[in-house]
Amino acid sequence: MSWLDEIKFDAAGLVPVIAQDEHTGRVLMFAYANREAVALSAEKSTAHYWTRSRQKLWHKGEESGHFQRIKEIRLDCDGDVLIYVIEQEGGIACHTGRESCFFRKLSGDTWETVDPVLKDPNAIYGHGHSH
Amino acid sequence: MSWLDEIKFDAAGLVPVIAQDEHTGRVLMFAYANREAVALSAEKSTAHYWTRSRQKLWHKGEESGHFQRIKEIRLDCDGDVLIYVIEQEGGIACHTGRESCFFRKLSGDTWETVDPVLKDPNAIYGHGHSH
Repeated sequence: MSWLDEIKFDAAGLVPVIAQDEHTGRVLMFAYANREAVALSAEKSTAHYWTRSRQKLWHKGEESGHFQRIKEIRLDCDGDVLIYVIEQEGGIACHTGRESCFFRKLSGDTWETVDPVLKDPNAIYGHGHSH
Repeated sequence: MSWLDEIKFDAAGLVPVIAQDEHTGRVLMFAYANREAVALSAEKSTAHYWTRSRQKLWHKGEESGHFQRIKEIRLDCDGDVLIYVIEQEGGIACHTGRESCFFRKLSGDTWETVDPVLKDPNAIYGHGHSH
C-alpha cells in the first residue's frame, strides 16, 4: 500500500492543494493535483499540480521560474486535501506578480487589494501568460 | 453589485474555503461554503460553511462549541477560493480533537501523525459525531 493510495482523489482524479510558505506561514496559492503531480512533488521536492484550465500536468515555475521547493506535505483528517509547505522561489507565487494569490481582503462591502505587485507579469512571462 | 457577486461559485454553488489561524498562521481546516454561508460569515463574524456530506448550512461550532471568529476574509486572484482568517474557539478545529485537520505529515513513504489530540472527540460531541 502506497502513501498515495491513502489520498482520496475526487471523481476527476484530483485533490485540492494549499501551498503555504514555510517561513511566513502565508497561504500563497490554491490549486489541484492529480496522483502523478503529488508523486512528482514528493519525489522531486518541487511542487507539481494539475491545471484544470489547460488540462495538463503543471510543474509550477516551468514558465515563470517561480519554482516551489517542497519542505513538507500534509494530509487532512479526511484524506482529501493536501498542504504543500514550500519555499517560494523569487518570493512570488501569483501570476499577477504578487507574493500570494490571496491579495484581496474584504473591507466593508468591497474587496480591497492590499498587497503590492512585486514584479510586472509581462516581465515574468514575456508574451502571453500562464500560472 | 455585491462583493458576493465577485466570488465565483462552482457548478454546485460552492467555493473552497481555507480556515487559517489569525495568530499562528496555521491552516486549521478546509471546507466549502455556499453564498449564504459566506454572507453569514461576514455578517455575523463567525465561520459558516456548507457541509457536502450532510448537504446543509453548517455554523462551525454549533455542536462542538468550537466556533471560529472571523477576523478577515480573503479572495484569490481567480475569485474562486476564500481564506477565513479566524480565531479558533477552544484551540481545536478538527473533529478528531486536534488543533488542525492537517495533523499527518509525509515522512518517507508513510503518513505520520505528528499532532496530539487535545481533547477526546467523545467529550466534544457526546454521542455520535459531526464536524
